[in-house]
Amino acid sequence: MQKEIVIVKGAGFCFGVKRAIDIAFDIAKKYNSGVFTLGPIIHNPQVVEKLKEMGVFPIENVSEKNDIKTLIIRAHGIPKEKLNQLKLLGYEIIDATCPFVKKAQRIAEKLSSEGYQVIIIGDKEHPEVKGIHSYAGQNAIVINSENIPILNKKIGIIQQTTQPFMKVKEIMKKIINSLNEFEEIRIFNTLCNFTSRRLEATEKVAKNVDLMIVVGGKNSANTNQLASLCKKIGVKTYHIEDPKEIKKNWITPVKKIGITAGASTPDWIIEKVIDRVKRLLN
Amino acid sequence: MQKEIVIVKGAGFCFGVKRAIDIAFDIAKKYNSGVFTLGPIIHNPQVVEKLKEMGVFPIENVSEKNDIKTLIIRAHGIPKEKLNQLKLLGYEIIDATCPFVKKAQRIAEKLSSEGYQVIIIGDKEHPEVKGIHSYAGQNAIVINSENIPILNKKIGIIQQTTQPFMKVKEIMKKIINSLNEFEEIRIFNTLCNFTSRRLEATEKVAKNVDLMIVVGGKNSANTNQLASLCKKIGVKTYHIEDPKEIKKNWITPVKKIGITAGASTPDWIIEKVIDRVKRLLN
Repeated sequence: MQKEIVIVKGAGFCFGVKRAIDIAFDIAKKYNSGVFTLGPIIHNPQVVEKLKEMGVFPIENVSEKNDIKTLIIRAHGIPKEKLNQLKLLGYEIIDATCPFVKKAQRIAEKLSSEGYQVIIIGDKEHPEVKGIHSYAGQNAIVINSENIPILNKKIGIIQQTTQPFMKVKEIMKKIINSLNEFEEIRIFNTLCNFTSRRLEATEKVAKNVDLMIVVGGKNSANTNQLASLCKKIGVKTYHIEDPKEIKKNWITPVKKIGITAGASTPDWIIEKVIDRVKRLLN
Repeated sequence: MQKEIVIVKGAGFCFGVKRAIDIAFDIAKKYNSGVFTLGPIIHNPQVVEKLKEMGVFPIENVSEKNDIKTLIIRAHGIPKEKLNQLKLLGYEIIDATCPFVKKAQRIAEKLSSEGYQVIIIGDKEHPEVKGIHSYAGQNAIVINSENIPILNKKIGIIQQTTQPFMKVKEIMKKIINSLNEFEEIRIFNTLCNFTSRRLEATEKVAKNVDLMIVVGGKNSANTNQLASLCKKIGVKTYHIEDPKEIKKNWITPVKKIGITAGASTPDWIIEKVIDRVKRLLN
C-alpha cells in the first residue's frame, strides 16, 4: 500500500517561544552561573534539558536557591505583583514574555484603569492567564464557557493568546445577545496569529488523513487543543511527547498520516517523529 | 362573537418625542412670531397642524423665510455642519434633539477623534442617521445589512436609536465572525430603550391576536418597523395614519384585535382609533 506523510505547515515553535528560547540560550552563553528560569522556559522537557546542560536551571520559586543573579521570565509571562516583587529583591530580570502576551497584559491594564470590567476568555489555571489577570483589575473575570456573570455596564473583552478562534466567537456571540444589558462592549483581539494559523492548517490536514500524530508536551495547552481538534474532526489521533511512543500498529493499517506539533515543540523533535514514522513504514 | 381589544403597553409617544413637542409648545406660547421648526417637529401631521395654529411653522430650509428669529431642532437632530451654519446665521437655536440621539452623536464624535472607523447600523436616508453620520468622521459608514465593507483595524459600532435589536444582533454577530481581521471592535449600545420595549410589547400582543392595527405616519421609520414585525409574525396587519381608514370588514371576521402605535403618534389619536374600533364592533 502506498503511504503518505503530511506535515502541517507552521507546526512547532511559534514566534514567542522561539524568541524566549533564543533569549535563554543567549543569556546561558553570556553568564557562567546564577541564571535561572522561573518555571520551565517552555513546556518541552528536551529544551529544558539542553538549557540545564548550559547551566540554566528552572526553579518554581526564588526561595529554592540562594545563588540567583539573573532570572528569565518565560514566554507565558508572570503576574504583575510577582514581577514587582522580583525586581525589589534585586535580581536582574530578563523578560522573555511573548510580545503577544505582553500586549494582552497592557490592554488588560488599560481597560481596568478606564473603568471597564475586564473579561478574559481562557483557562484560568494557565500561567499566561494568571499573568494577564493580574493586570486586569479587581473585577476581572476569566471565562471559559458561554455563561458569563456580568457585573458592569462597560465590559472589555480580551483572550488568552492561544484560545481557539471558534470558541472565542461563540462566547462573544453569546455576549452580543445581551448587548441590551450593556452600555459598551469593547473587544480587543489578543489572539496569536501563529496559533490560529497552526490550528487552521492542522484542521485542513486532519480532514484529509487517516491518522494524526500530535507532538508536544502533555501539559501544553496549545498542543492539547490541536489534539482535541483532530479528535473532534473524527480522525484517529495520538498525542505524543516523544517519538519513541509511536507504535508500528498505529501506522500499519492507514494510508495517509498527518503530523502536527504544538508551539513548544522544537523542529528537531518533529524531524525525529518523521524519521520514526518512515522507519516504521518499512 | 365575544371580541377583545388589546392595546400595546408603551404604544405612542416616546420620551424624546414627548420632550421635543413639549419644548415646541412652550416656545410657541412664549413667542408671538418668528418661530420655525426645521422639518416637521415629528412625523405626525396632526401635531404639526396644532403647532401651526399656534404660529410655529415647519420649514425645510432657512432660505424659505426671512422672518426667522427662533429655530427649533426636532428630535431626530441635524448634521453638525448645518447646526454650526445656523448658529453663524445668528438664529436663536432651540435644540430639541432627543437625548438618546445626542448621546449617539457624542459617541460618534469621540470614536472618530480616537481614530476608530465608525460603523452606524441604520438607514442612511433617515434624518437621525444623517445627523449622527456628520459627527462620525470621514471614514464612517452606515450599514443596513450584514455586508460590511471594513476599511480599518479599529472599528467603533453604534446604532440608529430606533433600530430593531434582533437586526442589530445579527449584524454584530457577522462582524464578530471576522474578529480575526480586527485589532479592536468597540460596540456602544445607542439603542433607545423605549423603542425596543415597544417592539417587544408589540411582538407579544401580535402573537396573540387575529388582527393588528399599527398607527403612525407612513413615513415614520419606527412605525414601519412595528408593521413589518407584525407581518413577519404572520398576523393580518394594517398600518394606518388616520382612524377613519379603519374599515368594518377588517374587524368583523376577527376575535382579538391588537393596537400599537409609533413614537410619533399622540395619545389622543390612539384614543380615537380605539373608539372607532369599538364603534365598528357594534
